[in-house]
Amino acid sequence: MRTILIQLDTDAQPSTFDRVVAVDSDVDELFSYGGISPENVTPLVHGAMFTRGPADLKSTAIFVGGSDVAAGEALFEHVQKTFFGPVRVSIMMDSNGSNTTAAAAVLAAGKHLDLSTSTALILGGTGPVGQRAGQILARLGATVRLASRSLEKAAGVCDAVKSKVADANVSPAETTSDAAFAAATDGVDLVIACGAAGVQLLSTEQRKQIASLKVAIDLNAVPPAGIEGIGVMDKAVEQDGVFCYGAIGVGGTKMKIHRAAVQKLFTANDLVLDTDAIYEIGLSL
Amino acid sequence: MRTILIQLDTDAQPSTFDRVVAVDSDVDELFSYGGISPENVTPLVHGAMFTRGPADLKSTAIFVGGSDVAAGEALFEHVQKTFFGPVRVSIMMDSNGSNTTAAAAVLAAGKHLDLSTSTALILGGTGPVGQRAGQILARLGATVRLASRSLEKAAGVCDAVKSKVADANVSPAETTSDAAFAAATDGVDLVIACGAAGVQLLSTEQRKQIASLKVAIDLNAVPPAGIEGIGVMDKAVEQDGVFCYGAIGVGGTKMKIHRAAVQKLFTANDLVLDTDAIYEIGLSL
Amino acid sequence: MRTILIQLDTDAQPSTFDRVVAVDSDVDELFSYGGISPENVTPLVHGAMFTRGPADLKSTAIFVGGSDVAAGEALFEHVQKTFFGPVRVSIMMDSNGSNTTAAAAVLAAGKHLDLSTSTALILGGTGPVGQRAGQILARLGATVRLASRSLEKAAGVCDAVKSKVADANVSPAETTSDAAFAAATDGVDLVIACGAAGVQLLSTEQRKQIASLKVAIDLNAVPPAGIEGIGVMDKAVEQDGVFCYGAIGVGGTKMKIHRAAVQKLFTANDLVLDTDAIYEIGLSL
Repeated sequence: MRTILIQLDTDAQPSTFDRVVAVDSDVDELFSYGGISPENVTPLVHGAMFTRGPADLKSTAIFVGGSDVAAGEALFEHVQKTFFGPVRVSIMMDSNGSNTTAAAAVLAAGKHLDLSTSTALILGGTGPVGQRAGQILARLGATVRLASRSLEKAAGVCDAVKSKVADANVSPAETTSDAAFAAATDGVDLVIACGAAGVQLLSTEQRKQIASLKVAIDLNAVPPAGIEGIGVMDKAVEQDGVFCYGAIGVGGTKMKIHRAAVQKLFTANDLVLDTDAIYEIGLSL
Repeated sequence: MRTILIQLDTDAQPSTFDRVVAVDSDVDELFSYGGISPENVTPLVHGAMFTRGPADLKSTAIFVGGSDVAAGEALFEHVQKTFFGPVRVSIMMDSNGSNTTAAAAVLAAGKHLDLSTSTALILGGTGPVGQRAGQILARLGATVRLASRSLEKAAGVCDAVKSKVADANVSPAETTSDAAFAAATDGVDLVIACGAAGVQLLSTEQRKQIASLKVAIDLNAVPPAGIEGIGVMDKAVEQDGVFCYGAIGVGGTKMKIHRAAVQKLFTANDLVLDTDAIYEIGLSL
Repeated sequence: MRTILIQLDTDAQPSTFDRVVAVDSDVDELFSYGGISPENVTPLVHGAMFTRGPADLKSTAIFVGGSDVAAGEALFEHVQKTFFGPVRVSIMMDSNGSNTTAAAAVLAAGKHLDLSTSTALILGGTGPVGQRAGQILARLGATVRLASRSLEKAAGVCDAVKSKVADANVSPAETTSDAAFAAATDGVDLVIACGAAGVQLLSTEQRKQIASLKVAIDLNAVPPAGIEGIGVMDKAVEQDGVFCYGAIGVGGTKMKIHRAAVQKLFTANDLVLDTDAIYEIGLSL
């Protein structure tokens, strides 16, 4: 039975990035759809549910992607509601690479730190990658500070994380004043920068002020760097006793996680590969 | 030479159902198009005609599908007009599963009845499946009554069947009054319910009134059943001496016919697989 | 590593013609996109660039096609600008078959003539095929006359050819008056007709007036012939000492060039297969 991955993309044109990775994950057949939303997805999901017998349903799976993470989340939710009982196929969500990138960043940090006792500051923490990295870290037991220019927005994202991780130790932060910066970085051993492309979130001087810092990860691939002084290719490069990672330095692990997650989809017909499950897959590599 | 199936779907997004079945029919390459109509199909057909030599043309074929059967029929017609002479590829029409479902229902009935001497009542007989089941039965020599709430509409569909089967013994029927019901069911050994989802067309009491009844087939998969008391999974389940079939009970045969028809497309370059040809394929399984 | 061809088509529906040829060129995976323009192509190119490592980038390639050659040229240009440095994939342009057709026509002529000393008249010379045939011939050293109903338009196309072939011996021509016809055909040993479908550009009588003529090629597949008396299947058919080729007579070579060019894409990650490169591929067959 050939494996079939149904790529449901919320963008008008289905991502070539996700298609190439699907091919490189040894998917036999890839059905790629663009412009997909909760409004038009139902018959596509029914076609996945009603074509193969119970024993073969695990050879069909669904991937939700696209550049708009919020749209992807709504689609992911809707697809799961369309299933009924055991008549379902496995499904993965990775809009804009949000889950695989967050998982790769946390995995990189975990090579140097005991994340269950770590204190992490996530800059640009209200975006899709920041929220997901925070969620994974909180589930591992870390103390997480989600920083944003808007404390109110950060508080909202903290609530979202708590709704997924009941005992999450996560709080909003901001770094605009010296006092706020000092409070946000107090005792921090991990900084992850997940901001918008082209915005510097931490200067070299600021980084050096964080005496407890051990790992700094910048997920911005477009200059200037989100963390000044980190090169996009950096991979565990030591600077002043801090292990530094750039976007491409983390990218190899991200790609491995992406491929492993796609392969995992075809091992059962009822997997739901979202943030935490994708991190677990990364951990097992 | 790899086999290529060109899926022309009249819906905006090409059906995943038809795609999965194509893969499971061992098609090597599937080109899937959505939003296809007679207005935009011509270059797609030309590309099928003018790319492979005469000996290899049978490795390319066209499948017409989509949820709108009338639109599929118009497209199917237009594609055939686009061919000229021997420069053509084989083509199959199965919009909304209409042909494979009708064929599977008649095949089920044929396991219990000599259809050449059968008298069949088709409830919801003016829809695409009802009309097709009627056509197949008429060609086999059965006496066919196509029932509808509108006798006029039923008469029109009877004319359509006669235009395809010259000596068809087919007549319109309606079942709203007791007298009409008695006339429509007189001597009937086969009832097939092809109505819209969620409409009961025959109560258990009515079914029991048809003393001659031997086979009852309900093609409705969504509760309530079109024929009261038939379960969606029923497959030759006997009730009061009547063999009963539900939609999923017929579904396995439907899928086999669909796959066999797709495979048959690649045995020659001039096949036209519409209602009767698809029934013949089912018969040969 | 499976080979992936990303087909970027400027038409709403990606060409089945180009898809079948890609399959017959042994491409492993074909990603087909319709409705592509410089405005929406960038993320599709990025997905090709950023998914495979440097050593594997040659297994991904891009094909630009569609019926509108000018739109294809703009898209081809934009895709190349999207690459940076060595992070690129090979790319081929063949909108409306323009490059492969022009290459096949010149190859046919080259079987009978020394093209470096030939004098060629291209009728309908301002269209995409005419311009490309002129460019190839000019690069080979031939004297080229591009004929059009509008001398001004022909002069513009000559300038375009010169911008690609610095020392091109190419000049505009027109054939509406007897004097102009005599000048345009003086010493001509090759005529290629590349006009719009259904327009006769050279009568039999006119052809016989060109005493020096050795090869006549008509690329029009729809009657009436662009060159009166040439059959669409003609392939080196001799008429009055002139070797004649029709559209289908040239078509076999065109298909071979198309397939060979697609295969060539996967031998390196930095190939740009436009007019001249595609002719070179044809020459090597």
